[in-house]
Amino acid sequence: MELLCAQWVIPVEPMNLVLTDHAVAIADGKILAVLPTAEALQRWPQAKRTDLPGKALIPGLINLHTHAAMAQLRGAGDDLPLERWLTERIWPLESKLVGPEFVYDGALLAAHEMLMGGITCFNDMYFYPEQTARAAQALGMRATLGIVVFEFPSAYGSGPDEYLRKGLALRDRLREQNLIRFALAPHAPYSVSDQSFRRVASLAAELGLPIHTHLHETAHEIQESVKQYGKRPLQRLMELGLVGPELIAVHAVHLNDADIDLLAESGASVAHCPHSNLKLASGIAPVTELARRGVNVGIGTDGSASNNRLDLFSEVRTAALLAKGASGDATAWPAHYALRAATLAGAQALGLADRIGSIEVGKSADLVTVDLSGVHLQPVFDADSHLIYAAGREAVSEVWINGNLVVNMRQLVASEAASAVAEVAARSRLWHNRVGEFLSASRDS
Amino acid sequence: MELLCAQWVIPVEPMNLVLTDHAVAIADGKILAVLPTAEALQRWPQAKRTDLPGKALIPGLINLHTHAAMAQLRGAGDDLPLERWLTERIWPLESKLVGPEFVYDGALLAAHEMLMGGITCFNDMYFYPEQTARAAQALGMRATLGIVVFEFPSAYGSGPDEYLRKGLALRDRLREQNLIRFALAPHAPYSVSDQSFRRVASLAAELGLPIHTHLHETAHEIQESVKQYGKRPLQRLMELGLVGPELIAVHAVHLNDADIDLLAESGASVAHCPHSNLKLASGIAPVTELARRGVNVGIGTDGSASNNRLDLFSEVRTAALLAKGASGDATAWPAHYALRAATLAGAQALGLADRIGSIEVGKSADLVTVDLSGVHLQPVFDADSHLIYAAGREAVSEVWINGNLVVNMRQLVASEAASAVAEVAARSRLWHNRVGEFLSASRDS
Repeated sequence: MELLCAQWVIPVEPMNLVLTDHAVAIADGKILAVLPTAEALQRWPQAKRTDLPGKALIPGLINLHTHAAMAQLRGAGDDLPLERWLTERIWPLESKLVGPEFVYDGALLAAHEMLMGGITCFNDMYFYPEQTARAAQALGMRATLGIVVFEFPSAYGSGPDEYLRKGLALRDRLREQNLIRFALAPHAPYSVSDQSFRRVASLAAELGLPIHTHLHETAHEIQESVKQYGKRPLQRLMELGLVGPELIAVHAVHLNDADIDLLAESGASVAHCPHSNLKLASGIAPVTELARRGVNVGIGTDGSASNNRLDLFSEVRTAALLAKGASGDATAWPAHYALRAATLAGAQALGLADRIGSIEVGKSADLVTVDLSGVHLQPVFDADSHLIYAAGREAVSEVWINGNLVVNMRQLVASEAASAVAEVAARSRLWHNRVGEFLSASRDS
Repeated sequence: MELLCAQWVIPVEPMNLVLTDHAVAIADGKILAVLPTAEALQRWPQAKRTDLPGKALIPGLINLHTHAAMAQLRGAGDDLPLERWLTERIWPLESKLVGPEFVYDGALLAAHEMLMGGITCFNDMYFYPEQTARAAQALGMRATLGIVVFEFPSAYGSGPDEYLRKGLALRDRLREQNLIRFALAPHAPYSVSDQSFRRVASLAAELGLPIHTHLHETAHEIQESVKQYGKRPLQRLMELGLVGPELIAVHAVHLNDADIDLLAESGASVAHCPHSNLKLASGIAPVTELARRGVNVGIGTDGSASNNRLDLFSEVRTAALLAKGASGDATAWPAHYALRAATLAGAQALGLADRIGSIEVGKSADLVTVDLSGVHLQPVFDADSHLIYAAGREAVSEVWINGNLVVNMRQLVASEAASAVAEVAARSRLWHNRVGEFLSASRDS
């Protein structure tokens, strides 16, 4: 039994509620009660008590789309158009470097960055998901790992059959791991065949798994699909049985009215990645309209190669600002809606809304404190809007996952976690040199 | 004589140059040389030497548009449309609270926030500029203060005559202050008469001062000008003699081809404030086209009431991302161009390009280190793009202004500066309560 007594508690559900001088009681990793601190101290005078003055206690942030291992490629392809970025930098680098060590080291770098920035759960898509699982476990983080599917061979496997087989076997192996979940992750409509999509649909139904896929990222992708299949990708996926509440459509930048209708009616979710969409000049997703139509929109950072900063605070700030600026409506995506997008909406998309994403009795204690006491954050009129518009990830102070304190005063608590990070940091010079050699060679050529 | 020996030195001029293991030699507040560290140590073996491993040394950032005192109103009007924001929150609060104490306390909060985030110079527009000057001086910062002009009376003065008289007298009084400069600051086309604009134009010519004004922020402003004057605001200002290299057009969101031609041909500058423009749903400035046409574009945070975070790192990251995303060109605003916008372009707009904005021999030593050694910033392939896309203001470690070390390891160096901040922080509860009373009353009514 433990009482976290904070100046502000923002439960996210119900939305738009900021509780002052409240306590969250936790036991066995779960939230037992949310009540005024004075009352909590009366009710449980013997409880272990943690005072959090000047801090806001919020649900852990949920990063709804990333490729954690790509932290190794952070900044390796900036200011390039999407096609050159992929064909001249990312794909050659991946084919040269990707293997279990690359993935573990990169995923650990990324997971550490995310955790220190208040992200307690991330939804990943990459080769060698067992290595990303190891990285998340090393830090005590929650993750949903993609069982990747695409048609082309890679060092990780020969094609869709092997990718599915390996992913499903990993899922079986990690069945007892409470914090690790799986999603089916067909890469994108342009890299996955109808046949493979059908298998994904039937597996998703059979196993009750979310489907995590890139969708409608660029106008080019849609044109090509219309050429090849005579239909837009979302329509194609619908006909193949993939569009329902289990679908997480990543990016969803280019949507016409029919697309938005379909997303709204099917109960699908969108993983909105504004920084990546801007940086690769893919465009601006119509998230104001999506919100108006009740589509569940979570927030993703995407991987470090197209964003460079796995920072959900700055990502959701941009999401809220862009929703207003691009729609001409300054009331669009108010702060409490934005905070919900970065927490509960992500949980809902992952099928975990009954366990995480808000501070509600019975949910897992995935909690983060944000220190609003700094001089540079004064005054604080509304802790809710301060989290979105003023504070940054550097203000994250404590992180609990499943009731375990994993970050305390901006330091990792577990010495094994700290050692794992130190080891990877020491090895990062090696990876740096290998990527650097490639970049020098490609610049000289 | 002092040698700052950094892992990277990014001089900004020439653009796109990242020097590794270089030293900046400074003496009497000025930059004496930029050369390889090994060479510097041979040439000046007796010099005081500061080693900056893992850090990038860059010119101090220049915030080209703010209302520093409005830090007191941070978060007091979020998620509201511009007109309600102004008429229901900002103007009533200002008329209730603004006076010399409000301005000094707010400006000091803002200046401290800016300084800790690597901003060494800011261009301000607000009532009681003598108080903003005091705040800048208390922290050893460089500032250009607006001699404000608008038609309506306020606690600060009865109208344009008195505003000009007070501002010009302040300029005379502070003539000996090396770090404090002045600009004429007619508020906006909709709040300043033709007659006052003419006086501003002739004073600017006579005294060699920049003209700092809000311009083409909203579509509404342009419609109203066409109705009232039969012309767009920029055209009106041109005819009144204000459009030339001395003009700093703040916002410049809504520009047609003729407007862009005029800005390009006249040599005027734009202060681009993307966060404020998005948050108030004013729109997205066509900065890719402005850059293509060679218009000098600097970056401003605007005031805390419409941005909430006086953070030029995140502002310029958004500027670079938005330039790509809104134009569809991923090569627009590459990192080195963005860094120039946040430094030398601001200096040029302020008429200070011969003194600050880049690390060049003979310029004042306004310098900032950004610590790129953190695990969450690894790997570093290109320090230049890392500054824009990955690092944040929290990585700022040291700040020198005019050769004086004002921030060391994220701490204010001068004890008087630290005391001034502590005093204001202690008083901030008072202002918080006064603003809070108003907000509660306006919510209840």
